[in-house]
Amino acid sequence: MKLIVAKFGGTSVGTIDRIKSVAAKIKNEVNNGFNVIVVVSAMAGETNRLIKLVESLTNDYRTSEYDTVISSGEQVTSGLLAIALNELGIKSKSYQGWQIPFQTDNNFSKANIKEIKKDKILFDLNNGYVIVVPGFQGVHKNRVTTLGRGGSDTSAVALAAVFGAERCDIYTDVDGVYTADPRIVANALKLETITFEEMLELASQGAKVLQTRSVALAMNHNVKLQVLSSFENKKGTFIINERQKSMEETIISGITYTSNEAKITLFNVIDKPGQAAMIFGALADKGINVDMIVQTSTKDGEATDITFTVLKSDLLSTKEIIENLKNTIKFKNMVEDSKVSKVSVVGSGMMTKPGVAKTMFKTLADNNINIQVISTSEIKISVLVSSDYTELAVRTLHDAFGLGKDIKTINID
Amino acid sequence: MKLIVAKFGGTSVGTIDRIKSVAAKIKNEVNNGFNVIVVVSAMAGETNRLIKLVESLTNDYRTSEYDTVISSGEQVTSGLLAIALNELGIKSKSYQGWQIPFQTDNNFSKANIKEIKKDKILFDLNNGYVIVVPGFQGVHKNRVTTLGRGGSDTSAVALAAVFGAERCDIYTDVDGVYTADPRIVANALKLETITFEEMLELASQGAKVLQTRSVALAMNHNVKLQVLSSFENKKGTFIINERQKSMEETIISGITYTSNEAKITLFNVIDKPGQAAMIFGALADKGINVDMIVQTSTKDGEATDITFTVLKSDLLSTKEIIENLKNTIKFKNMVEDSKVSKVSVVGSGMMTKPGVAKTMFKTLADNNINIQVISTSEIKISVLVSSDYTELAVRTLHDAFGLGKDIKTINID
Repeated sequence: MKLIVAKFGGTSVGTIDRIKSVAAKIKNEVNNGFNVIVVVSAMAGETNRLIKLVESLTNDYRTSEYDTVISSGEQVTSGLLAIALNELGIKSKSYQGWQIPFQTDNNFSKANIKEIKKDKILFDLNNGYVIVVPGFQGVHKNRVTTLGRGGSDTSAVALAAVFGAERCDIYTDVDGVYTADPRIVANALKLETITFEEMLELASQGAKVLQTRSVALAMNHNVKLQVLSSFENKKGTFIINERQKSMEETIISGITYTSNEAKITLFNVIDKPGQAAMIFGALADKGINVDMIVQTSTKDGEATDITFTVLKSDLLSTKEIIENLKNTIKFKNMVEDSKVSKVSVVGSGMMTKPGVAKTMFKTLADNNINIQVISTSEIKISVLVSSDYTELAVRTLHDAFGLGKDIKTINID
Repeated sequence: MKLIVAKFGGTSVGTIDRIKSVAAKIKNEVNNGFNVIVVVSAMAGETNRLIKLVESLTNDYRTSEYDTVISSGEQVTSGLLAIALNELGIKSKSYQGWQIPFQTDNNFSKANIKEIKKDKILFDLNNGYVIVVPGFQGVHKNRVTTLGRGGSDTSAVALAAVFGAERCDIYTDVDGVYTADPRIVANALKLETITFEEMLELASQGAKVLQTRSVALAMNHNVKLQVLSSFENKKGTFIINERQKSMEETIISGITYTSNEAKITLFNVIDKPGQAAMIFGALADKGINVDMIVQTSTKDGEATDITFTVLKSDLLSTKEIIENLKNTIKFKNMVEDSKVSKVSVVGSGMMTKPGVAKTMFKTLADNNINIQVISTSEIKISVLVSSDYTELAVRTLHDAFGLGKDIKTINID
């Protein structure tokens, strides 16, 4: 069986006409000899409408009932698409999470996938049916669960892994992954391929193309992903394994940025063992993710400054937690700064190329952009800068690494 | 266990505030020591929205997918009400049709109930949970089914029968069943009780309070029904068994009318055996229900006139079918009249009282209202009159049978 899993986001199924055009795309794949499992999101706006209904009752809802309510959006789309496919002469059947069953754990509203039973869907695929599965939803012991926001991507990748699909196509409203945000960098180029690791960095850095979790799942199960536009008929960006990339490909895949973090600095923290563990342990206990951390060298051997970043949405509770620790960790004062952006250079080719950092820092310096914090991983270098310089940083780095030019490799050192 | 089944229609759960007030009503029942199963419709307008989505794709849809789409409306309400109840401190859990399971046959979009499994709900009831069940939906072998429009009443009655509820309360936007339409008859009275048989006549005659099917089900399983308003705090009308009615109760329960039928007369039909069978057989084959029928005595022993009524919505197809029979049944001409109303006097007490018909016909004659067709059953007498006289007929009959006066019995012969 030549199987494709194709996932369509909320905008792609946002109107009856778009659902019809999705059906036409699937018909095309069937005519090309493919079996297809389609994964659909709720029609654009529908999930927000349902969440609003729940939250106008209470914010302290039973999550199992919340899941019953909001899973209905995808349910509706799945039935509508099956009807649209049948109307085009393509045999089709929808399968809700409980019908498959698509089993998860009992973490309602953010469930983890446990097992997907294959027999019923496989039987129908073998009989020529296109299967339509509502994304985002599963079942735990007779109760509907949901996978958390953006979970439809994860549903699609999981189905592709379990059924051994040749490809998992993620149709969305952009036509691929770019070397930088095209709204900022006019000559940004669409990438033909990108590695899972790079995509993970891009996703977590703010390129809102694919849910991070789905990329990690695809990487772990070696699912070949393609991100492409549901509004155009052209190839998108393939997300592949490092080893599938040829030697000639670019070292740097792209420049990305995010403005959703805030910086906190604690001045004159008494410098003794366990201080950092106490601070970051307290934050972790409350579920607050700390991203960048830097600790300055001590001034007189007794006190140190600690700077770190958290999501802006966590800023208030972070400050509260730190204030409560003030007597224990004995810092002088706490300063926050929300006007910061994190700009990153991402590329799996950079691991063996120390010149990337040099080029990055020099480019920023040449443009008088002050670097506040630096963090690095094997495939990216991130710097925190004043948000005034976000666009300038992204644009000049994009140029410095030659990403806008239609060439495959550039020289670094 | 003292159990009540309470069903709330679309208007009663049409907004978040109304869902909250339904939760408050249920809390009241719980505080009075009752276990409760609540059956809910989709929020007002929602089912129509979903049907419109399907029908903008095609009118030739697969009904199993149609059911998947439109059952979502009740699903949403059930989750929301469970959340609202929990918010009031009442333990509550929703159960979709497939979770119970609420088993039906495979007549998707108009399924018949087969069996309702009790164990899971009973376990939760015994643990003090209020159970919220979406009306209108069931399951057949892993596929969602729906019971047809208005099926939520039927869901509620079926649950009341299976769980042996003391009462099945149908909350709606009217506060009970009246002796006549209060918009026409100013002094119409709300009935404290009405028999199933009377309610069936009223329901099929146009009193849009309860789905006919649910009344028949309640009658067959001896479920005590109450129709009451969800917007007021007072008793409604109880629908009970004939034998539960005391001897003192009124003979006539109410006057009702419907204007949704049209009259057709075939003049000079050749009078030979099998003619009527041919006409009404042909109509039945096409699913057209014929209501009143009258055949005049032959004039010269060779020809007869046949008059009958059908739903106005069936008028066009009825005429086509009759035209196609013209050569076979050899009638002279066909005359239609859509300006007719059927006015009925309903009361299970009339069976042994021939005076009812006399009073009815005399009242109409006194008011110069011409009777076009008459039909009778054990508990009602219906007449077809020109629709110009609908209100006059209903009002004068209401007076003639003393229904507006607050007395329990009236004298007829």
